Amino acid sequence: MEYFSDTKRNFPVLRNTQDGQEHGTDWLAIEEPLEIRLGFGPRGQRVQQTLAITMRTPGHDFDLVMGFLLTEGIIGRKTDILQMRFLDAAGAQIVLAELRPALQVDMARLSRHFYTGSSCGVCGKTSLDAVHCQTAFLLAPGVPVVHAALFAGLTGALRQAQSLFAHTGGVHAAALFDTEGRLLCAREDVGRHNAMDKLVGATMKTTSLPLSHSICLVSGRAGFEIVQKALMAGIPILVSVGAPSSLAVELAESGQMTLVGFLRNGTYNIYSGSGRIAPG
Amino acid sequence: MEYFSDTKRNFPVLRNTQDGQEHGTDWLAIEEPLEIRLGFGPRGQRVQQTLAITMRTPGHDFDLVMGFLLTEGIIGRKTDILQMRFLDAAGAQIVLAELRPALQVDMARLSRHFYTGSSCGVCGKTSLDAVHCQTAFLLAPGVPVVHAALFAGLTGALRQAQSLFAHTGGVHAAALFDTEGRLLCAREDVGRHNAMDKLVGATMKTTSLPLSHSICLVSGRAGFEIVQKALMAGIPILVSVGAPSSLAVELAESGQMTLVGFLRNGTYNIYSGSGRIAPG
Repeated sequence: MEYFSDTKRNFPVLRNTQDGQEHGTDWLAIEEPLEIRLGFGPRGQRVQQTLAITMRTPGHDFDLVMGFLLTEGIIGRKTDILQMRFLDAAGAQIVLAELRPALQVDMARLSRHFYTGSSCGVCGKTSLDAVHCQTAFLLAPGVPVVHAALFAGLTGALRQAQSLFAHTGGVHAAALFDTEGRLLCAREDVGRHNAMDKLVGATMKTTSLPLSHSICLVSGRAGFEIVQKALMAGIPILVSVGAPSSLAVELAESGQMTLVGFLRNGTYNIYSGSGRIAPG
Repeated sequence: MEYFSDTKRNFPVLRNTQDGQEHGTDWLAIEEPLEIRLGFGPRGQRVQQTLAITMRTPGHDFDLVMGFLLTEGIIGRKTDILQMRFLDAAGAQIVLAELRPALQVDMARLSRHFYTGSSCGVCGKTSLDAVHCQTAFLLAPGVPVVHAALFAGLTGALRQAQSLFAHTGGVHAAALFDTEGRLLCAREDVGRHNAMDKLVGATMKTTSLPLSHSICLVSGRAGFEIVQKALMAGIPILVSVGAPSSLAVELAESGQMTLVGFLRNGTYNIYSGSGRIAPG
């Protein structure tokens, strides 16, 4: 059973304008830690181990966990998870994901992989190689082809789906569209990566991977890890409202993904895989 | 010796506007992994251990490492680091920070602490307590007092210091100001937390902690970890251009820090510690 948590909370605020100060209140997005714990190993020797603690906006926690496990290469499909449940009775702070007993989980590798500060990093000069080794899905070059004019409508559709942003002005979003530009699903979170993981997890529940006929739009910038997560889900076209980083473009290029950045008022830049976008 | 690395690179781009497509180039911020390795333990039994791998924009890497070690509670002052050096001859991918032999480093605790996904998380319901246990510096309530009108000038000063942003439109920044609003130092990075750590590390080289007479401005949102890092450096006033999260406000409140959000065109909201801001 998934908890229904508040995603925003009202705080007192002292507003400062040119006209002076006034007391008021402000809705802020809730940020709380979630521990993701794995249950794995053969029957009779099942063990639990903490995989990650992420600061996230509560709600859609099972989507977050499923998406995280997929985009980080721990599971390959939703049936690799037998069940998920909250371990703490009172709140929603620890999710246990029981994995299929036969699933090989190399905790030593994961320990190294997640042994990071502000980033799910990958080691040294093998960054790009490491991602491609993990990816189960290869993108087909030039497929699908979508119309260049379609992108102009995406940001408006995302904004309409951003209910938490509308209240707080302070959360990221990720959305999935079909190849005609119709919104399929959107998720919000204080963390950019969490929004992406929630989106992938939610989609996996009803759609089999890879997500070969979809366009993903993220509200922020496109860093390396966002491209990595999209690749792991087999998303062929990734669009960001903000700038991509150098490594994001290099990873998209080597994975044959279409990467679009700076989508604003219908204009945008294509950094890789332009063959999937038909002009006119 | 610190390497002088490029912070931006030119990429080919296909621009899409209402008038059609055209080929061009675009400067993007470089994002590359940096491994932070600790050298610690008594003489004769020195060991090296990887602490974190972070995706960062190259440059000011020693600032980044020093700031990271301070804001994550591993060191308490700059002299806890005997020396820093790059371990890889060719590039700037691994920094070894040699710690003072007598320094107590609980790698088991750090392993748990950093065992996280998109966040340097802290466990469960003890988030706020955990931070306060680590903090060496307590903020003095109501000190310093700064003028409310001073904030209007901060964003302009930061923008002028954002040379990489000016080229790429895609990096975060953190800046330190004195209590008159004069810019002391600014740092940029693809990662928000890295920009903050670089700023703290750069400041530590010339200024002793705590940074009791300073104002810190960050370009993005103020999440829990940004407030945590500011607290660890003893910064009494933290200002963000974007929204704070719920946990950021709660941590600022309990640490008696002044937290300002949504600083735009001279207007802003005070979420905690308003006693440090004199109206008029």
